[in-house]
Amino acid sequence: MTNKKNMTPVGGFPEYLPEIHAVEQSWTDRIRKVFEASGYAPIETVAVERLDALLAKGETDKEIYTLTRLQAEEDENAKLGLHFDLTIPVARYVAQNFNDLTFPFKRYQIQKVWRGERPQVGRYREFRQCDIDVINVDNLPLHFDAEMPEIVAECLMRLDLPPVTIGIGNRKILDGYLQGLGIEDTVSVIRIIDKLDKIGFDEVIAELTKAPALDPDTARRAMALTTIKTADTSFAKAVHAIGVTHPLLDEGIEELAFVIKELAHLPADAIQADLSIARGFDYYTGTVYEARFKDFPGAGAIVAGGRYDNLASQFINKKLPGVGISIGLSRMFGQLLAKNLIAKAQQSPSQVLVIWPRNADRECITGTARILRARGIRTECYHAPVKIQRQIAYAEKKGIPFVWFPPFEPGSMHEVKDMKARTQSQADIENWEPSK
Amino acid sequence: MTNKKNMTPVGGFPEYLPEIHAVEQSWTDRIRKVFEASGYAPIETVAVERLDALLAKGETDKEIYTLTRLQAEEDENAKLGLHFDLTIPVARYVAQNFNDLTFPFKRYQIQKVWRGERPQVGRYREFRQCDIDVINVDNLPLHFDAEMPEIVAECLMRLDLPPVTIGIGNRKILDGYLQGLGIEDTVSVIRIIDKLDKIGFDEVIAELTKAPALDPDTARRAMALTTIKTADTSFAKAVHAIGVTHPLLDEGIEELAFVIKELAHLPADAIQADLSIARGFDYYTGTVYEARFKDFPGAGAIVAGGRYDNLASQFINKKLPGVGISIGLSRMFGQLLAKNLIAKAQQSPSQVLVIWPRNADRECITGTARILRARGIRTECYHAPVKIQRQIAYAEKKGIPFVWFPPFEPGSMHEVKDMKARTQSQADIENWEPSK
Repeated sequence: MTNKKNMTPVGGFPEYLPEIHAVEQSWTDRIRKVFEASGYAPIETVAVERLDALLAKGETDKEIYTLTRLQAEEDENAKLGLHFDLTIPVARYVAQNFNDLTFPFKRYQIQKVWRGERPQVGRYREFRQCDIDVINVDNLPLHFDAEMPEIVAECLMRLDLPPVTIGIGNRKILDGYLQGLGIEDTVSVIRIIDKLDKIGFDEVIAELTKAPALDPDTARRAMALTTIKTADTSFAKAVHAIGVTHPLLDEGIEELAFVIKELAHLPADAIQADLSIARGFDYYTGTVYEARFKDFPGAGAIVAGGRYDNLASQFINKKLPGVGISIGLSRMFGQLLAKNLIAKAQQSPSQVLVIWPRNADRECITGTARILRARGIRTECYHAPVKIQRQIAYAEKKGIPFVWFPPFEPGSMHEVKDMKARTQSQADIENWEPSK
Repeated sequence: MTNKKNMTPVGGFPEYLPEIHAVEQSWTDRIRKVFEASGYAPIETVAVERLDALLAKGETDKEIYTLTRLQAEEDENAKLGLHFDLTIPVARYVAQNFNDLTFPFKRYQIQKVWRGERPQVGRYREFRQCDIDVINVDNLPLHFDAEMPEIVAECLMRLDLPPVTIGIGNRKILDGYLQGLGIEDTVSVIRIIDKLDKIGFDEVIAELTKAPALDPDTARRAMALTTIKTADTSFAKAVHAIGVTHPLLDEGIEELAFVIKELAHLPADAIQADLSIARGFDYYTGTVYEARFKDFPGAGAIVAGGRYDNLASQFINKKLPGVGISIGLSRMFGQLLAKNLIAKAQQSPSQVLVIWPRNADRECITGTARILRARGIRTECYHAPVKIQRQIAYAEKKGIPFVWFPPFEPGSMHEVKDMKARTQSQADIENWEPSK
């Protein structure tokens, strides 16, 4: 019995005490409600995908966890991996269920995803994302590109978070601008620009002059858009002022202006046009989203997404354009937890603890609990007939707000102790309601 | 573009259309509510555990999925695996957080688990379980062994399922009885007896005479308890009538009689004493639970669990006895789905679809939707200004019960069409409520 198994937490796999997890769960409940309020239907895809589906659009550098059966026979090669986002799975799901879905298909998914990253501050290897996506056949109206950040802004408001402005960019602006500069390998350049927040301006310039071999002046000009952030459509003027022109650039500016205008009714600072947003995934083809906490921008994006016009085409001969956005719930939660900004909930969902004074009173206390539960009041009984003070201390520790004393003597009444007010009074079990 | 990726579902990984998943989600919501009504707190453990934690109590024959990083360096050996149940994880969690938890620790977990089984009818490789467990320090009162099936019986009632009787047995009865027969390797014998439902009586007898090498008469006597199933405590008499005696057998009978008596208030057929229950996991030390649908018992257990007095001791030098029960939600759901007993929900959570007749009316329809949403009514707008009939057909397909016509002409009124009643009438947007 001395050779105990290692139970030290494995880095990057977050796990919480009940009083913290209860907060996270209330967040997912609130987010779900906002998603459903706009008609997004819940679905769930399996955590395990074929490896070749996960390796979509050349994303071979994703840190995918592959699965092997511990007792697998030789030669058995499952070629299965854990999903690392919910976007590739929904594209596969839509292609697979094409004939049974009604389009535009609007769905949300609140699930864990896994990435085999090297553990580092703010990075998780298992984390929860809350995604909404809309996918249509052939064409997907641009107003959905505005609906995504609108719904997320509503979620963030309901969670009562520190300030977040959702940045909205457009891949066509960046791509068109780079093409206008005469750059050919725009994909590689965009991937490097996407690292701006992580490695800083000088390092991005240095990388751009290396692999894609831009000359220093072009590298600097390639970065010119990244400083343009406007609350309204004035970003267009700022881009034109640089003097680079390209048809794709104009198309992107027009799209982004439409999206920003659609969101004019949102509270100030809820969204902004932000041309520094590149997004690392190759599958984005137009609008892109990204958001961080204003007060700790270095802690990484907590919202991300964009439009992908061709993601499902790897599975099916259909044009199925989509747009989606993801709330990085675990990361968001983790950032606030690290700053001590999460207020603990109670350890138990119970509203009432029923006291058990003497062994003989067992049926009285279980019967009392049953009446309260049938009335919708969350109730637990203390588990042993010990000193009342110990039982009350248990309620105190678990944060249970009311302690109930059933009538143990003939003719006596139910009594209830309000733990916060520190008062005790008679109660009518058929009508008593816990105050909030 | 002709070389499409394989999107055929991988066997054993169930995934549903929105109208089916919505039902599954409503089930987990209802189960959660019942668990919380008795004071069980939600927690979540990570899906990934150290492999040696998963290989608890000699359970090396579990079909564990191990994880490898796709881009792992040579020699890197994570020794991580996906959890295959929620009992070993909670034992590890309690040991790890021992100083921060309040005991008795009552928690529920509704999570996916994974088993690398060979795909076969009714077996899943990814599936959801809904577990409650209570774990205490040193001693755990026996009345919790009654609370487990009581809470699950309540869950099953709330789901409005075909009849299920939860069988309750006790490992001590089986173990003591086998010892009373003079059998030494009771663990191996119990593992074989556990296969009764899968392989049948004759095959069990054949196996018992092989590896544990029982003589045919002892093998048959070892099976004598498996026919004893009683609604009350009369099982005790039936056991005594066999004439085998052992102190452990007496202890088990006493425990089971206590549990059955505690549950006398439940509706008839909710529970029964069932001495055929063995349970494959070695970690059970007393009470064991198992339930199947009465109408299709061959489809496998949908509820299982039991008491484990030593599970956490592999991690910590404490005595942390526990008892728990698990609803095999995916399996239960899958069995009913296979029998066409799941009534589809609507494809969309929307209560209202707002019609978009002309491009110019965009602001009017989004404004209308915002008012309805602010009033708590789940509302989506049709996505394009096409023929009204197409828009109504969309509501019909998605099962959206009301179609809303905002006032597009000055002086006209809001109107709402009830899709079921096929009536259309004026509506006051500030007071209208969707009927159920």
